[in-house]
Amino acid sequence: MAKDKKLVEAITSMETDFAQWYTDVVKKAELIDYSSIKGCMVIKAAGYAIWENIQNELDRRFKETGVENVYMPMFIPESLLQKEKDHVEGFAPEVAWVTHGGVNPLQERLCVRPTSETLFCDFYANDIQSYRDLPKLYNQWCSVVRWEKETRPFLRSREFLWQEGHTAHATAQEAEERTIQMLNLYADFCEEVLAMPVVRGRKTDKEKFAGAEATYTIEAMMHDGKALQSGTSHNFGDGFAKAFEIQYTDRDNKLQYVHQTSWGMSTRLMGGIIMVHGDDSGLVLPPMIAPTQVMVIPIQQHKEGVLERAQQLMEQLKEAGVRVKLDDSDKSPGWKFSEQEMRGIPIRIELGPKDIEAGKCILVRRDTREKIECMLEQVAETSEELLKTIQKDMFVRAKEHRDSHISEVKTYQEFKDAVEHKPGFIRAMWCGDVACEDKIKEDTTATARCMPFHDQEAISDVCVCCGKPAHKLVYWGKAY
Amino acid sequence: MAKDKKLVEAITSMETDFAQWYTDVVKKAELIDYSSIKGCMVIKAAGYAIWENIQNELDRRFKETGVENVYMPMFIPESLLQKEKDHVEGFAPEVAWVTHGGVNPLQERLCVRPTSETLFCDFYANDIQSYRDLPKLYNQWCSVVRWEKETRPFLRSREFLWQEGHTAHATAQEAEERTIQMLNLYADFCEEVLAMPVVRGRKTDKEKFAGAEATYTIEAMMHDGKALQSGTSHNFGDGFAKAFEIQYTDRDNKLQYVHQTSWGMSTRLMGGIIMVHGDDSGLVLPPMIAPTQVMVIPIQQHKEGVLERAQQLMEQLKEAGVRVKLDDSDKSPGWKFSEQEMRGIPIRIELGPKDIEAGKCILVRRDTREKIECMLEQVAETSEELLKTIQKDMFVRAKEHRDSHISEVKTYQEFKDAVEHKPGFIRAMWCGDVACEDKIKEDTTATARCMPFHDQEAISDVCVCCGKPAHKLVYWGKAY
Repeated sequence: MAKDKKLVEAITSMETDFAQWYTDVVKKAELIDYSSIKGCMVIKAAGYAIWENIQNELDRRFKETGVENVYMPMFIPESLLQKEKDHVEGFAPEVAWVTHGGVNPLQERLCVRPTSETLFCDFYANDIQSYRDLPKLYNQWCSVVRWEKETRPFLRSREFLWQEGHTAHATAQEAEERTIQMLNLYADFCEEVLAMPVVRGRKTDKEKFAGAEATYTIEAMMHDGKALQSGTSHNFGDGFAKAFEIQYTDRDNKLQYVHQTSWGMSTRLMGGIIMVHGDDSGLVLPPMIAPTQVMVIPIQQHKEGVLERAQQLMEQLKEAGVRVKLDDSDKSPGWKFSEQEMRGIPIRIELGPKDIEAGKCILVRRDTREKIECMLEQVAETSEELLKTIQKDMFVRAKEHRDSHISEVKTYQEFKDAVEHKPGFIRAMWCGDVACEDKIKEDTTATARCMPFHDQEAISDVCVCCGKPAHKLVYWGKAY
Repeated sequence: MAKDKKLVEAITSMETDFAQWYTDVVKKAELIDYSSIKGCMVIKAAGYAIWENIQNELDRRFKETGVENVYMPMFIPESLLQKEKDHVEGFAPEVAWVTHGGVNPLQERLCVRPTSETLFCDFYANDIQSYRDLPKLYNQWCSVVRWEKETRPFLRSREFLWQEGHTAHATAQEAEERTIQMLNLYADFCEEVLAMPVVRGRKTDKEKFAGAEATYTIEAMMHDGKALQSGTSHNFGDGFAKAFEIQYTDRDNKLQYVHQTSWGMSTRLMGGIIMVHGDDSGLVLPPMIAPTQVMVIPIQQHKEGVLERAQQLMEQLKEAGVRVKLDDSDKSPGWKFSEQEMRGIPIRIELGPKDIEAGKCILVRRDTREKIECMLEQVAETSEELLKTIQKDMFVRAKEHRDSHISEVKTYQEFKDAVEHKPGFIRAMWCGDVACEDKIKEDTTATARCMPFHDQEAISDVCVCCGKPAHKLVYWGKAY
């Protein structure tokens, strides 16, 4: 038992130090390891398997909307990065520069892509000629680099994995529709697959993407009340098209600029899963994204017939399409329980000699620790049903937590009190002036997370900061 | 018809200029586009879809052998690259160096990974403690960078996509077994899925990987008789383990070095598919890897009922699990035929009003152009059967071509004549001295492709180059 305790004690509790709890979980659940390259991490097998499930499910959803995958080079010549003014200003300070190929200095230095708008634009300028070539609906899965000063596993690292979709359309309306379509796809994915409720909305101009006309976002709330921007979708209008000369001849044989969008989700989502669902025993994975959904743990496995029956159980579950593993290592059952809990495997099945005699086994939910007795012949149906229940319950709990951590405030004093004492989102009116955003950030560190689509009714008619007339309801919060 | 001709005429014939034919195919089949970054290419949707099929099938096969995916950083600090002497000598001259992060110069420059042995070793040094931690069977899918002077799409580019497997084992024997296991996995994949026959063998010391004890290879023959190294598997022994101090405590509590392997396949394979199967009308894709296996092309589609029946046909095929598309664009049927041929889609189905009246359609094989009449209600079974036949026939044809382009030579004059006049592999004895390899390369540009596993009987007892005693049969050839 000493060993079992050690594993569990190794995690700081969320209450004591949320940041340390997070770091402990990513390490102890073997999601990542630090590397010799400052600010870059190793994504270990347990972490990458979750990312693969995210990729597969997102990719399937993208393709259903007509998106195709492509691959652009990882380097951007400096002159190309500079073509769109706002864009280069946003990214140039934080890119990594390649200056030498082998022993020779390069004629023009190249940055490692921080995002690939400029590469897609350069490509589209040649590839798009006529209205017949539109729309272009491309995506790529790759890694990108941003030379951040402070880094945290999954949340902010110098290199991270993501997908970036880039589309080109004949009309402004089509581009706007695609921008919203992808934001909704992201939101549905988060809620249905990651059991992570999100607020859909529009970013203020201060918070929008460098070079975008409009940026839409989904904002999730972590257990500590802080916001995580979990996916963004940008409408570029024809700004990039003008900078890169991306034109097509329309049906009347006239030259027109295309209208573009881009949208991305990244390994940040992994941080979201941890901080929305995790607890003091470690990770809690939503069944739909869990690489292993059920861990079978034999009790007194040295006794005759136990391992064989556990093996059979596993096969039953496998046949039913459940992602199942059997832990038949020589560790103690208690140690195995702790490991399964630390790794967030949604269900463990305990099976010992007495259970077998009685024709039963015990299912234990990771999320609630509830124990369910189950006849051995019904283990497949019961597990499948339970996985669905867990998935649903996890979303409901996360939503209740989120909804109970939203404060509505009308005065600046209330705002400051809320930031100080009530972790979560703050609903407050805003006049639209960036000066108020700047002041709020300086006074409280909270930022405008979004102007929500589904919650627009005015709380009052004046700005929470300056008191001038205000029509915009904004969700504010501290953010990762 | 003028337009139809234009598309076909745009390809140089293989006879006239094989290199130009290749370039024409990769462009006209829309597999790649050139980019603004010299030596880097854009992989377009039609090309990337093939790569995705390669990835899915390889990844499935890897996982069946217990391999898990992980992700290492894309940067390697210079000091890390230098830890294994042979390795750094092999790669340092051709890496891209990052020297600045944002506006600040880095304390130590970083190279963009040309391969990740050093990163995996750095990781293993911490991650492996006990015999219980072994074996480690990891793989990653990523892009790597080698600053090549001369580049060609898919075959040699400054950035390419690949997978790199890296394993660590307790014993030398286990490492050797894994090295051979993965080589055989690669060979089976090439032959079963890509219909590309390969010779399995061992590289000479001159040709082996920088830092390896032994490198094994699969060598395919292109239509022009040149070899394409299509996959390699390396046994490192404990060389890297000693350089990086990767040790574990064995069952007797003694410290031991691990034994390591690595193995990789890349987007080079795309070049192989093109040059093994392609013809003067463009790409010819093996059905197992073709993103679209059947293209339905309606004839006189403006006539009543034609498009509807074509649509039905497509649905029938889709339900049977065939990857099928319908070309209902406003192009002429002849133009559509040319496009389907250029893109290498294995089967096209022609369906016009007369066919519908007779309850039939025409299946046309891309590989042989054979036309097969088929009753409409049998189109699914017939197509499925035909796809299997095409897959098999393509392998047989490629193998016949390969086998008929292998010369056996005993004298150096014969060797030189063969290189000059008989494109293909040359079977010849070799004494084992690198001086002979160097001389042969200088005189003829041919290199030792491999010492084959399955063809070792001596042709003579003297080296084809120097005439000294020789026991090693080597396959030689010009190579991409």
